[in-house]
Amino acid sequence: MKTITVNDKFEKFNKHWTPHIIGELNGQYVKLAKVKDDFVWHDHADEDEMFFVFKGTLYLDFRDQPTQAVGPGEMLIVPRGVEHRPWTKDGEEVWLMLFEPRQTKHTGEVEDAKTVKELQWI
Amino acid sequence: MKTITVNDKFEKFNKHWTPHIIGELNGQYVKLAKVKDDFVWHDHADEDEMFFVFKGTLYLDFRDQPTQAVGPGEMLIVPRGVEHRPWTKDGEEVWLMLFEPRQTKHTGEVEDAKTVKELQWI
Repeated sequence: MKTITVNDKFEKFNKHWTPHIIGELNGQYVKLAKVKDDFVWHDHADEDEMFFVFKGTLYLDFRDQPTQAVGPGEMLIVPRGVEHRPWTKDGEEVWLMLFEPRQTKHTGEVEDAKTVKELQWI
Repeated sequence: MKTITVNDKFEKFNKHWTPHIIGELNGQYVKLAKVKDDFVWHDHADEDEMFFVFKGTLYLDFRDQPTQAVGPGEMLIVPRGVEHRPWTKDGEEVWLMLFEPRQTKHTGEVEDAKTVKELQWI
């Protein structure tokens, strides 16, 4: 049991759209990701997903509701089954924390060049 | 589905040691708390608990390991069954986010004057 300095963990990886695990509790993973430009449309049929932003502004498009902007110190919970597309504006790199069940697949049932199948602990 | 500005939520309450709910996902609550001075020793037999600090430094004592300090941007996961006592130094008010299962009792099986039984959404 040890205190985790989140910004130190962000220094441990650079690859975009590749979440890394920093904690686990109650069957949920705490993950960090650095993201830039566009991601793929996807949903998670059985898992709600939480985005908490540390740096930059994350945008999320939805099929039938307005795009949400999530800035530093802000969070958004995307309910299960809601298709979403995360992206960043003008090439900005955004740092974010994710909360989701251990079994959550990176891009749901969508297979994409950006899909990561085996997440790493840092 | 709406972006939540966490600092705005902190402005909505002042009572110490009284977590307020700001989100729910996968059977877990996201809660905010303002804490100051000493809390009661307790554990949660079946729930891991995550502390993420926004402001100030939270200290956690444990029965058989060193006290941990958790500052802004830092987090600590306390596994189920591990007795802990949160406190703050020199009367500092600390702002923190908690992640824990919906059914988690505030002070476990301990009943104390500080125990809150019905949490409020903000």
